[in-house]
Amino acid sequence: MRSNLKPLIAVTMGDPAGIGPEIAAKVFENNDIYKKCRALVVGDIPVMEETVTRAGDPIKIRKILTPAEGLYKKNVLNVLQAGMPSAKVCEPGKVSAAAGQVAFAAIKKAIQLAQNGEIAAIVTGPIHKASLNLAGHAFAGHTEIFAHFTHTRKYAMLLVHGNLRVVHVSTHVSLRRACDLVKKKRIQDVIFLLHEACLHFGISRPRIGVAGLNPHAGDSGLFGSEEEMEIEPAIRAAKRAGINVEGPIPADTLFSKARGGKYDGCVAMYHDQGHIPFKFDGFEWDEMTGTMKSVRGVNITLGLPIIRTSVDHGTAFDIAGKGIAHADALQLAIDYAIRMARYRAEHK
Amino acid sequence: MRSNLKPLIAVTMGDPAGIGPEIAAKVFENNDIYKKCRALVVGDIPVMEETVTRAGDPIKIRKILTPAEGLYKKNVLNVLQAGMPSAKVCEPGKVSAAAGQVAFAAIKKAIQLAQNGEIAAIVTGPIHKASLNLAGHAFAGHTEIFAHFTHTRKYAMLLVHGNLRVVHVSTHVSLRRACDLVKKKRIQDVIFLLHEACLHFGISRPRIGVAGLNPHAGDSGLFGSEEEMEIEPAIRAAKRAGINVEGPIPADTLFSKARGGKYDGCVAMYHDQGHIPFKFDGFEWDEMTGTMKSVRGVNITLGLPIIRTSVDHGTAFDIAGKGIAHADALQLAIDYAIRMARYRAEHK
Repeated sequence: MRSNLKPLIAVTMGDPAGIGPEIAAKVFENNDIYKKCRALVVGDIPVMEETVTRAGDPIKIRKILTPAEGLYKKNVLNVLQAGMPSAKVCEPGKVSAAAGQVAFAAIKKAIQLAQNGEIAAIVTGPIHKASLNLAGHAFAGHTEIFAHFTHTRKYAMLLVHGNLRVVHVSTHVSLRRACDLVKKKRIQDVIFLLHEACLHFGISRPRIGVAGLNPHAGDSGLFGSEEEMEIEPAIRAAKRAGINVEGPIPADTLFSKARGGKYDGCVAMYHDQGHIPFKFDGFEWDEMTGTMKSVRGVNITLGLPIIRTSVDHGTAFDIAGKGIAHADALQLAIDYAIRMARYRAEHK
Repeated sequence: MRSNLKPLIAVTMGDPAGIGPEIAAKVFENNDIYKKCRALVVGDIPVMEETVTRAGDPIKIRKILTPAEGLYKKNVLNVLQAGMPSAKVCEPGKVSAAAGQVAFAAIKKAIQLAQNGEIAAIVTGPIHKASLNLAGHAFAGHTEIFAHFTHTRKYAMLLVHGNLRVVHVSTHVSLRRACDLVKKKRIQDVIFLLHEACLHFGISRPRIGVAGLNPHAGDSGLFGSEEEMEIEPAIRAAKRAGINVEGPIPADTLFSKARGGKYDGCVAMYHDQGHIPFKFDGFEWDEMTGTMKSVRGVNITLGLPIIRTSVDHGTAFDIAGKGIAHADALQLAIDYAIRMARYRAEHK
């Protein structure tokens, strides 16, 4: 790929029964999309056509076989078919094997394109795990699919919103299992991944705060020993390697401090520890409409050989097909993908 | 106590080496304090005198032996000595047995006053557990002290800030132990306590949201079984008793929804699950000064025979004695104590 061109970004369509196709189309209603990148959708052409028709968008869908065939100009939405075009468009809001298969095919295709160097980054739309599993793909989520197909062992989920950049020691496991996974080696790996990611975002000397596992970060060993046995040794090792890192910090103050500018990145010990403050910051419930008004978070998989960013919301089956989904998070995920693609292009 | 008088509220001084005495004095600088209640400080007279002198406050300290002796008027701060007056005022920011003893004596004295009906409610200032323990009082915190001296077995910590009212299934235990404490009976008790507390706050038909323990509330049993085995049965039982309750709801969206008005109260399965969103909402880190700008949360112990509210911040040893602590949270804790005292007076 020639680096003097704008980066090629593939947006995967997500589950066809969710809001993924709708927000993907909405992003292309914004005429600014092609100012900073060349973006295409990898997914299913019948689904995208149905979505655009339903919305009455002025956008024209252009079927392409390779990203190079794309016409990256106003009101054109390039769609690259992944797998066979679906015979029947899935009903919005319904779990099905057919929907899971369409969603999975798009991800797999996008990974191949990135591995072949045909695209610079992947931005994923929301998928539904039940449909994915019904289709025979037993993955907990995107992160695990990307790790599998890129043969990546050291990876971590990073959430980004404003000043908050939160990486997780573990994600889709029970809380009991998450306690077991609080281990020095893993924490150290995650600190390194976060440090590197911050550099990629243009932060020159990242300040990292590491959460404790237990209340009050264990309160000097009164409530659990993981801080002393695992977290503190990992922090000491990262410090010796020259990383500006502090902790363990009680989880109930770490994220306020980070939001206020004290840390550039946070290490969360388990899924909800990071997701609670993150979604509390980026999501706003609208009691009038019964929907989340603002869903701006970006989810980035660290440690992969390819770039993958994503919205951090789900398929929102309850509002799928209604035309009221917000594309803010997808737009922000594309912006981060562009930023990371530029950094890689400049530093390779 | 005659109910036609304004409620008598005792503010315990907290640890003398922390910001407790300072914020207690600050509350009395506000001339509005006596408009809604008759408030006094239970603590140590030498410490309060030193605090007022250091601040150059125009307030006069009046030593009283019983709340009835108080003079509840502008610029008068009534202090009721708990235990022996301290011979030497503790150094700010230092852990010591002497400080722990002074803090403990104030709490114990206030509990006695409430049990005797001499005061209507207790508002506690922040204490330091290390000092408390050095003084030979092996309690995890205020909640445990209050439960002990009032012989209360079913109690729970409620945090309040704006629309967020969060009660905890467990608090000061390790996260592993917290997983063990997610039991149907306890969850049910906590739902009932929260429901009743909401009624006391004037919410006529409280809507309660219960968090899951595991990520995605267990994702249909994929990540842990506590939702199915313990939380769902507790919710069903509470529903049968006529409570308007929903769940288990993934913890990373529950609190945004509650803040937005979908729930009047939330049940958190462990300390940090409730404290993270709560402090994220009420606390704001000021990177310029290196302090928390806004510390407005109120902590209320539910299930006690007496009323106890509290600030939800700590002793802030790092800024103790500097005159820069904020009294917002203490003011709000007093407001809640007044509200609850009025409800009890009207409904007894």
